Amino acid sequence: MSVCTVYNRMILPSVFAGQEEDYKHLKSHVQVWDVACERQVAVQGRDARRLLDLISPRDLDKMADDQCYYMPAIDRDGGMLNDPVLVKLAEDHFWISVADSDYLHYVLGIADALSMDVRVWEPDVSPLAVQGPKSDDLMARVFGEEARAIKFFRYKRLAFQDTNFVVARSGYSKQGGFEIYVEGGQYGMPLWDALMAAGADLGVRAGCPSTMERVEGGLLSYGNDMTRDNTPFECGLGKFVNSPKDYIGKAGLLARSEPIQQIRPIEISGDIPPITAAWPVTVGGKVVGQVTTATWSPDFKTNVSIGMVDKDHWDAGTALEVQTPIGPRAAVIKDKFWI
Amino acid sequence: MSVCTVYNRMILPSVFAGQEEDYKHLKSHVQVWDVACERQVAVQGRDARRLLDLISPRDLDKMADDQCYYMPAIDRDGGMLNDPVLVKLAEDHFWISVADSDYLHYVLGIADALSMDVRVWEPDVSPLAVQGPKSDDLMARVFGEEARAIKFFRYKRLAFQDTNFVVARSGYSKQGGFEIYVEGGQYGMPLWDALMAAGADLGVRAGCPSTMERVEGGLLSYGNDMTRDNTPFECGLGKFVNSPKDYIGKAGLLARSEPIQQIRPIEISGDIPPITAAWPVTVGGKVVGQVTTATWSPDFKTNVSIGMVDKDHWDAGTALEVQTPIGPRAAVIKDKFWI
Repeated sequence: MSVCTVYNRMILPSVFAGQEEDYKHLKSHVQVWDVACERQVAVQGRDARRLLDLISPRDLDKMADDQCYYMPAIDRDGGMLNDPVLVKLAEDHFWISVADSDYLHYVLGIADALSMDVRVWEPDVSPLAVQGPKSDDLMARVFGEEARAIKFFRYKRLAFQDTNFVVARSGYSKQGGFEIYVEGGQYGMPLWDALMAAGADLGVRAGCPSTMERVEGGLLSYGNDMTRDNTPFECGLGKFVNSPKDYIGKAGLLARSEPIQQIRPIEISGDIPPITAAWPVTVGGKVVGQVTTATWSPDFKTNVSIGMVDKDHWDAGTALEVQTPIGPRAAVIKDKFWI
Repeated sequence: MSVCTVYNRMILPSVFAGQEEDYKHLKSHVQVWDVACERQVAVQGRDARRLLDLISPRDLDKMADDQCYYMPAIDRDGGMLNDPVLVKLAEDHFWISVADSDYLHYVLGIADALSMDVRVWEPDVSPLAVQGPKSDDLMARVFGEEARAIKFFRYKRLAFQDTNFVVARSGYSKQGGFEIYVEGGQYGMPLWDALMAAGADLGVRAGCPSTMERVEGGLLSYGNDMTRDNTPFECGLGKFVNSPKDYIGKAGLLARSEPIQQIRPIEISGDIPPITAAWPVTVGGKVVGQVTTATWSPDFKTNVSIGMVDKDHWDAGTALEVQTPIGPRAAVIKDKFWI
């Protein structure tokens, strides 16, 4: 890799051949991503479900045994602490596959404070993502044809060598693909090598989440596009707030169910520099929001961005200015992301 | 800096001129360390003390208003989650100055689970350490003579420009010095420049914690020398376990008050490589512990190290072998660290 970042205290590659080259490859072929930094918070024991019901704004009653749920994680005021994927292994055993924040300790603090009959720990599980339009072909070669039958946000346990992995149809791109929850660090390199060998004629190569692709697709990044200062409603995640249980933060969150700012896709004109801190969004000189991720989109031939915009200015078609470090740029709210 | 590491998701310099040169300078002059990565967990509100009493194995009843306490932080089984310094700002307001782990979320989880009347957050406070034998002289020039009167692990609020900082006599070296809790990021550079200008004739320069110096002095590193698998007793921190309160983990911790392994200073003969993962400690081929930090000591002209050793082999004078990646090395348990 040529560029990397730090995510959950681990190295995450962020560029291989080049941003645009990586992006085009992801959209045409298949990539294998080392996303071991998506750590798991394992929750197991008699009180596992009781603990999850305390922290999940999302109704878990209908969650199937092979299902994964995108779940806003909040504090008692409804502020977002993480946006993990919850994986149900058994009625009393779950993995919370976390984005970049310290969520394990939050869950542990609750379990300890309430003396719950549950164990909370970080298991030796490191996700490897297979993403891109040729993902099904590659996975079928390594894991068998049944990989193709995995439904969106569902998983199967598929054999590899002398073990098996949870393999879900999910991942941090809109190109389709899988996340393999590699349990046992010793299987990481053999699996990597097997995928690379099996996919040579598919053009497989190492990759990583693409900022260009994820902004086009409207995939949010915790710590960048949303923080503890934001509610799920502000992040457009209101549909995942439907638990009938008395979870922590329910009152605080529901009191904020009519947001005064919200995530929006924003198209920016002109040349823009790399974004290293939020850019103010203004109307007539008044700050009405901020852009948190912005990049050139080769396919849409425009600058695509994710911003948080005040209610009075968030309607599609609204003209704005984005204050970049190299000057103001004309911008407009889009009605949807670039997908 | 020429080498850096990641600590609490921030960049921490780890070498400037060279390990040995940095070490000799620290022991002779004065250095300014950017240890902003020692983040603060602020706890404020009516229930602040109640919350601290729930998480502290150390008795806080006699803590003075200007005092700092080294405090083992544990989970309900007595496993170490962090080894912060607790700073008392007021009866209802504390900072927990954390080592490298996600302790904020643990504290927040407890506060949220028990609906406590307390706010838990990360304030804009970034410690700057002034360490070395000439620290008092430098600090007196920038903060006035009263800096000299600060006692060990006590603090004063000292003026700088239009504000004041908590300035404590503490720090991650045995050379003496201070930690300035810089509140307000905008003061960081002016303070840095003021210290550099005032100390030119004292030989002041940028520095960072020195592995050579801290191993000589027996200062432990959370995440390296101790983890959640260890109790404070195993880490030689039993004297800080004296709270009469019914804190979380009290039963679990006291059940483990007779450790079967403990931190020891270990002298290693011969040449050793840089340590990047724990080295097994053996006696007659049987593993009886591990070395977690090891380095050459220029002043003591030997390899100094920190290890966790089983009870049957932890007595001073015990001969051991340390299995380094380049071969076994003869080693011996010392009766005390190199101070």
